Formats: sequence, C-alpha cells, structure tokens
Amino acid sequence: MKILVISSSLKQEHIDKISKTAKDHGAEVSFTKSEDMVPSDFEEPDIIYGFGMNIAKKNKNLKWLCVPSAGVDYLMKPGVFANDNCKLSNSSGSYGVTIAEHIIAVTLMMMRRLTSYYGSTLEGRWETTHWPQSSLKDSRITVLGTGDIGTSFARRARAFEPAKITGISRSGMSNDPSYDAVRKIDSLDEILPLTDLLVMSLPATLETDNILDRKRIFGMPEGSYVVNVGRGNAIDEDALCDALESGHLAGAALDVFKTEPLPSDSRLWKTKDLLITPHIAGNLTLDYTLDKNVDMFTSDLNNFLEGRSLKYEVDREKGY
Amino acid sequence: MKILVISSSLKQEHIDKISKTAKDHGAEVSFTKSEDMVPSDFEEPDIIYGFGMNIAKKNKNLKWLCVPSAGVDYLMKPGVFANDNCKLSNSSGSYGVTIAEHIIAVTLMMMRRLTSYYGSTLEGRWETTHWPQSSLKDSRITVLGTGDIGTSFARRARAFEPAKITGISRSGMSNDPSYDAVRKIDSLDEILPLTDLLVMSLPATLETDNILDRKRIFGMPEGSYVVNVGRGNAIDEDALCDALESGHLAGAALDVFKTEPLPSDSRLWKTKDLLITPHIAGNLTLDYTLDKNVDMFTSDLNNFLEGRSLKYEVDREKGY
Repeated sequence: MKILVISSSLKQEHIDKISKTAKDHGAEVSFTKSEDMVPSDFEEPDIIYGFGMNIAKKNKNLKWLCVPSAGVDYLMKPGVFANDNCKLSNSSGSYGVTIAEHIIAVTLMMMRRLTSYYGSTLEGRWETTHWPQSSLKDSRITVLGTGDIGTSFARRARAFEPAKITGISRSGMSNDPSYDAVRKIDSLDEILPLTDLLVMSLPATLETDNILDRKRIFGMPEGSYVVNVGRGNAIDEDALCDALESGHLAGAALDVFKTEPLPSDSRLWKTKDLLITPHIAGNLTLDYTLDKNVDMFTSDLNNFLEGRSLKYEVDREKGY
Repeated sequence: MKILVISSSLKQEHIDKISKTAKDHGAEVSFTKSEDMVPSDFEEPDIIYGFGMNIAKKNKNLKWLCVPSAGVDYLMKPGVFANDNCKLSNSSGSYGVTIAEHIIAVTLMMMRRLTSYYGSTLEGRWETTHWPQSSLKDSRITVLGTGDIGTSFARRARAFEPAKITGISRSGMSNDPSYDAVRKIDSLDEILPLTDLLVMSLPATLETDNILDRKRIFGMPEGSYVVNVGRGNAIDEDALCDALESGHLAGAALDVFKTEPLPSDSRLWKTKDLLITPHIAGNLTLDYTLDKNVDMFTSDLNNFLEGRSLKYEVDREKGY
C-alpha cells in the first residue's frame, strides 16, 4: 500500500504523525511539496493526501484521494478520476475557526467603515467624518449554510449580542445553541427581507447556483450587508454590484468569485462598498487549521487501512 | 434651574426624553448644536450636557457639567471651571459595545494580514501570498484596564476560544466571568512576557503616563500585538515604532496618540505593521451608544434635580 502526501505546508510533527500511522499498518509513504516532484516509485499510489489531480486523472490504481480543501466542486466533473470507484474525502471541518475570524473581521470593517478610516490613514490623512455605521449588536443575522464554517461564525457572533441569528440549511436542523432558529432553504425568501447581515458559506452545487439572485438581493432591507466565503457560483455578481452602486446594500465582502483570479476587467474591482479579498479566508497559515486538517486525514487513514468506512467521505450525490 | 444641552447628534427621541425629565422637575432646557450658538438667556446655565468648556471656564453659576466622552483628562487641569465646586460627570459606560467591536476588528485585520490582502485588492491586485498569520484562538490576551470598554471586549473575545484572558486593573478585581484572572497593575512586568495580544483602555492619568515603556514593549514576546483605544499618553510611541520596525512586535493598532491629530511629520505614519485610525473607535454614530449616553445623563439629571448624588460623577482624585 503506497501513500503519497503532496503539501508544502506540513511541519515535522505532521510528517511524523502521518508516517507513524502508515508504518503501524505496514504501508509506505512518500512526502513531496508538489505534484511535479513525485518520486518515480510513487507515481501510481493507492492513496493521495493533497492536490493530486493530475495523478488521479491517469492512475487507475488510486483508491482514495483526500484533499485539504473544504470545497470539492472542482472534483465533481467527469474525467477527474481514472478509477471510477476511487473514494474522495475532503477537509471540511478544519476551516471553521479561521474562516469565522475572517467573516467577523470583514463584517466589522464594513459596518464600522474601517475601509474608509483605514483607507484615509493609509494615505496619511486624519479623517474624522462621522460616516453612518452599523453594529453587530441588535442586528439580525442570517447564516446561509450551517456547516462547520457557518456555525463557527454563529458561535462568535453570539457574543456580540445580535438581535437574532437564523441558520438556513438543507435539513432545517442544527443542534447548535448559537442559532435562535434554523430553517429550511425554502424559507429564504421569507427571511432575507428580515436580514441585516447575510453570511454565505455554501458548497458549489447546481442547487446553490445564483441562489442569491437579483430579486433576493433587492428583497433584502436597505442598508444590509452580504458576506460570501463559500463559492462564487452562489451570487448574481452583476445584481450585487447594482445593489451596492445604488446604495441599496450598505456593503458586501466577497472572498470567492465566479471566476478566480478575478479578471482585471471585472466590474467588481470598481464597485463601491465592495470589500474584495483574494480567496484567502481559509488558507493554511494558521497552525490550528493545519493541525486539524492532518488530524482528520490520519484518523481516516486509520479507518481506511483497517477496512472501515471514511468519516470525511464526500457524498457525490449531494456534491459536498 | 437652566439646563443647556450642546450636541449635533441627538435625535428627536433623545430631545423628548431630556425635555420631559426637565419639565417634570420644573427646569428649563435649551438644545443647541454647538457652543457658538447658545441662546442669550442660556449663557449662564446651571447644568450643561455636552462639550461646554468655554462656558464652564467663565460661568460661576455652573453646578454640573456632564460630558458625552469617557475620557476626562482634558478637564482635570486648573482653570477649566470658573466654579471650583462644579460637579463633573462623564459617559464612561456607553462606549463599551462600539469600542469592543473596534478592538476585535483591528485585531483581526492585523492577525489575518487583511491590511495586506485588502491593501492589494484596493490596488486591483489578486495577491495570494501566504503571509504568516495569527488567530485569537489559543492566544493569550491581556486587557489593561478592565472598565466597561475592556470588559465588553473580553466578553466578545471569549467566544474566539483564546488560551487565556487576563484583566489588569488598579484594584486587581472584577466579577466578570470573561476574565480567567484579574491582577493588580503591579504584576504588569510579570504578565506582559506571557501576552500575545495586549489591549489597552486606560484613562490618561499621571499613573498611566508611558505605562507601556520601551522595556515593557521589548519584554513582550516576539510576534505579539498591541491595541490602544484608551489614551495616547500610555505608550512610548518611539519605542513602539522601533519594536514594529525591527519585527519584534507583529503589529500594533492605535486609535489614540500623544498628539492628535497625529502631526504630518510623525514617524508613526510611516511605521510598518502599524494600523492607524483617527480616534474614531468611540464615535457617536451607533444608535446604541447615543441611546445609552442619553440614558445615563437623564438618570443623573433625575438624581441631581431630586437632590441625590450623581451616579456617573468623576473622581477628581483618581482622574476618571
């Protein structure tokens, strides 16, 4: 059994942990920083942990691909796997903490007009204009997508004394006490007009394509905010720009886009009150994220090598 | 009894509330947007709510000045009051929510390098370099000054799963469960070397002058962060710049400075990893802050007009 690990982020402790799990089961493991640097005897591994899509495409021997990302939409197309029965797992569950901090940061930057105040001091200006501001306190928050990311955000947002936090999910259920209510996705049209801050952390599926369309954007209250850290497919970007330019929305913060990198001629670059970050909310620079990521893989490596099913296997029907 | 209210922020509901309290006690009240626009029959009021320092300086009849700020250092100098027995109250207690949100916002902007990522997208660049980042999770937080502002911050920070939150105050006591420990100010030298994030919200007094001096700044761990929302007197600014330039500190966010507005030739404008905001953390643009501010004044107006002592009176000995 050969395991190929492709990562430029792992520390020695992570390498040791994966090596020990492999050795305990008599499996071989090779670590490489990129798919271009795979040793010749690991070109047809049984297991890959990392972004090994070029190998997955050619290697009929591959039995399991574990990717260190939460989103897996890019792996759902035909032709990605040479072996139709290859298992796929993701690392959804390790990004909640870091992305929740991102959401709180960009939300407060917008609500408190720090984009303007910090923007002015960057230019050396002492600008004390009292621009209209908002607060998380007493605001009505809707979390669209109540997975690890949405719920990690809700837990933190709770401490800011919001008026209400409503979660929206496919099942309409969550046991997390951070939500005042959890509703099914078909109540979106009812809830958006009562939303001051919409936080979106949805996977890219056919069901989520343009889920925030023009009608829903303009159905939100005047002066409300949108944050998207899920996938860019979920928003009608042109309608969002119109809503920001007209002042209907007070602000939006996007970390994900329909096309990434965002094309240089995109209208979004020039849209007012739009805070753009380059898909960095969930990067692997925090120790916690990386530790959790490796923990999840090694626990599933134990499962796989001992013949049990994978805990973090992706449901290909649902697409996440 | 004549009450002069000086404010450009009050809404009709605030005016109504103050008017009713005055009327209920047979007092007269006049509202004006600035000290330059006071009606002639209110030039020698008994009570002022607002920044009425020019009147306080000349009017021996003034019995009580209530200022809408938390800091009162600028009122402690000789010659501020024509009447030596004039009572002074402040609005400490109304700024906790808004300033706590500011602290969380600037802390996360620094820790997550949003200053760099947002800075690059402002220039139209899609910059995905993995700069080193930090997290509130597992960080050791020290709150220097455990009043309303520090404690409102601690309550919110708690939800981010820090390793520890230590409060430092004059008394060494606080009943708020958000602190893991509260220590007296003389343990500062012991606690700073164990601090990843130092949040300062102290009044300006002789005791707090340069309390964060060069030795203490360089005694903090490499890669730690400083946030000051109290008063600029508390930090040796030159030493802070040295610590940032040398990379000893990972970042600092200052909303207050020894001299405000920050002089155009100040070294601080050019210092790396220093996030400057122009003393806006506690401005009155949030409904909540203004509501609470007016509530505090009217409750003390009741106290004053009924012969009771003021709840929010400043202790001139302590200076806050």
